[in-house]
Amino acid sequence: MAIYKSGEELMKEVRETKGFGDAVSFWSLGQAGILLKGKEEDGLICIDPYLTSSIEESNPETEFKRAFPPVLNPAMLQDLDGVLVTHGHDDHLDLSTIKEIGRVSDSQFGIPAPLVTFVQEHLKNKDIHSAKDGEVFKIKGFKVTPIPAAHTEYEKDSSGNHLFLGYLIEVNGIRIYHSGDTIVTPELIEKVKAFKPNVAFLPINGADFFRTSRGIIGNMNSREAADFAAAVGVDLLVPIHYDLFPNNRENPAYFVDYLFQHYPCQKFHMMVPGERFIYHK
Amino acid sequence: MAIYKSGEELMKEVRETKGFGDAVSFWSLGQAGILLKGKEEDGLICIDPYLTSSIEESNPETEFKRAFPPVLNPAMLQDLDGVLVTHGHDDHLDLSTIKEIGRVSDSQFGIPAPLVTFVQEHLKNKDIHSAKDGEVFKIKGFKVTPIPAAHTEYEKDSSGNHLFLGYLIEVNGIRIYHSGDTIVTPELIEKVKAFKPNVAFLPINGADFFRTSRGIIGNMNSREAADFAAAVGVDLLVPIHYDLFPNNRENPAYFVDYLFQHYPCQKFHMMVPGERFIYHK
Amino acid sequence: MAIYKSGEELMKEVRETKGFGDAVSFWSLGQAGILLKGKEEDGLICIDPYLTSSIEESNPETEFKRAFPPVLNPAMLQDLDGVLVTHGHDDHLDLSTIKEIGRVSDSQFGIPAPLVTFVQEHLKNKDIHSAKDGEVFKIKGFKVTPIPAAHTEYEKDSSGNHLFLGYLIEVNGIRIYHSGDTIVTPELIEKVKAFKPNVAFLPINGADFFRTSRGIIGNMNSREAADFAAAVGVDLLVPIHYDLFPNNRENPAYFVDYLFQHYPCQKFHMMVPGERFIYHK
Repeated sequence: MAIYKSGEELMKEVRETKGFGDAVSFWSLGQAGILLKGKEEDGLICIDPYLTSSIEESNPETEFKRAFPPVLNPAMLQDLDGVLVTHGHDDHLDLSTIKEIGRVSDSQFGIPAPLVTFVQEHLKNKDIHSAKDGEVFKIKGFKVTPIPAAHTEYEKDSSGNHLFLGYLIEVNGIRIYHSGDTIVTPELIEKVKAFKPNVAFLPINGADFFRTSRGIIGNMNSREAADFAAAVGVDLLVPIHYDLFPNNRENPAYFVDYLFQHYPCQKFHMMVPGERFIYHK
Repeated sequence: MAIYKSGEELMKEVRETKGFGDAVSFWSLGQAGILLKGKEEDGLICIDPYLTSSIEESNPETEFKRAFPPVLNPAMLQDLDGVLVTHGHDDHLDLSTIKEIGRVSDSQFGIPAPLVTFVQEHLKNKDIHSAKDGEVFKIKGFKVTPIPAAHTEYEKDSSGNHLFLGYLIEVNGIRIYHSGDTIVTPELIEKVKAFKPNVAFLPINGADFFRTSRGIIGNMNSREAADFAAAVGVDLLVPIHYDLFPNNRENPAYFVDYLFQHYPCQKFHMMVPGERFIYHK
Repeated sequence: MAIYKSGEELMKEVRETKGFGDAVSFWSLGQAGILLKGKEEDGLICIDPYLTSSIEESNPETEFKRAFPPVLNPAMLQDLDGVLVTHGHDDHLDLSTIKEIGRVSDSQFGIPAPLVTFVQEHLKNKDIHSAKDGEVFKIKGFKVTPIPAAHTEYEKDSSGNHLFLGYLIEVNGIRIYHSGDTIVTPELIEKVKAFKPNVAFLPINGADFFRTSRGIIGNMNSREAADFAAAVGVDLLVPIHYDLFPNNRENPAYFVDYLFQHYPCQKFHMMVPGERFIYHK
């Protein structure tokens, strides 16, 4: 499986994509990885970058083998201003990626509070935001509000800080919700609805007995993602978390079929790895 | 939506379908309803017949509206020898259907133990088997072993008897598993695997946050049904519980796609309402 | 990709499957290959057997590579009474298969008239029926009527005989239509409708510009197969010609989706390679 655009060619596109008055640009990095750009002065951030093959390299027996190579080498991200990590699983918090970004850039990091100490060891002298439920922080033009995610339960450390997060992000007048890994809960519906997101990135790979038995922690499925988007009122729904690992996939055709039958007016966009999408409000 | 075969025409087919040395005949009654016939002397039983519109008649506000009319009027089942009920939900235990069958036939009934007292009031002087985990009973040539189902938890009454059941059925040398409504559990895999079923009737409608929130209790989904069939070793997999209620459906195309991609040698048959299938061992 | 049942185990099942008063038994050989048995005295015939890998062996560059091995070695077909060939393409008329069947059995052959001279060279002293539009011939209990197929045009040789055929087959009171490779035409609808088939084997792999450009001659697609079955009135629809060659496939889930949405009462059965199906009228 190839990539739409990658490496220096992709970075060139990222640099040359200038902001517009009412728009946000984003690129799919595969799995839950998203690169986000507002206007030029807002900076460039990414969420959950897994830009190496460290999972399969550190454990050749793993069933989590990439279906396509990283769209970027993390060393290319010298101009990055921020990295948001939703939780500690390898495909969301990849230390190899994070460390390399820390080495080459002045990027800040948003890390779930329970993981900050662990991450700090690998990111000496870096600016790390300890991400906690409802505690806003800013990275250049991006205003970021962490909210709890249930993967598949809400879990807190002994200080009461959530291990799994999603992010409500505002930039250039546009509101973006990146769910991280989560199922649907009534609280989540309420919080995301109140945020009035223009764009939502939601997983569609679901969960089932057999994957759970093998230690794969589940997410909302494609039907839930569609119903959730309708329940909270999202302008553009972007499905994520189904493309990179064949063992934990859901055929996105089911998502499309369900939308077409039930929500034929729900705007959505499925991204291919390395694709840019410019969302105009 | 029309029906393949119904009413007197269907009953004629049922009567005229004679048993074979190595075969069992079954008809789809819609939802989880199955009519089963072995050799002539084995008799005729059915499982979970919902042959009225009592749900929508008693509650016009319900979202559980039939997509097609009953394939049979229960008054036509004078020759029935047994009715197996898996649990107390309206689409599985329909009192109107059960009472009418009791009125017109000498049928026996297999009812989950916790529901027997309730059902008895409506089935005076009828032969009722109080169905309990592992306690075998016979209805003519059918040997029936109830096993617990998890819908979506295993639930017991104060006497320790399970509210939700599936049935292991042996007739004419053929082993049939009707799951009732259930999710997959390790115990279920173990029990059904030990039974070595030739045929398994499994729900594919799944579960999700939004249906659960509206009070719809979930089942295994199409992916789990396929994986379960592979895990226990079933010769013929028959998906059920997806056709009758549009509000609680899953598109069976997802089931077929998953089978075709993952288990291209798993025999299966999708039934249309009122269809007969003759399974030869 | 594995096979449901193959080799001697499959042949044993074929031999031991005895006919019933109202039934016909058939086995999927992959692609368009079907093995047919009526009552014992009716004999055993097959249609379009491609039971070798001769296409890819004779041309390693071909894109027509088997996804699964032959379910039978043609040398196992000593008891075969007839072979019907629908047209001269390699996956329908495989000389290696045909010659081996000729060598080991007393099978008769039904071959489109334009191909008889060619085939005779390889089948010395064999009983060959020169199959022509509307000219009935018999092979034991099987009454066979060839009808023209349009693949994707009706084509005739200089004597006016059709190169592409389908077969209307009557055995044991059951009418079976095997389409061969064809698109839908008004004449085909008319002829097949008049035949009142109980069972129809129809291709679902379709056609498109790109496959056509590579020399792949098209067929009806899954939607046309479903609409055709409805138009002519078929009791049981069996999709074929989608499983063997990944390069010329269509996902059968689309077929199921279309049926479920548009013809929810159309009986159908999807076969896995080496599967037996016993159709009772």
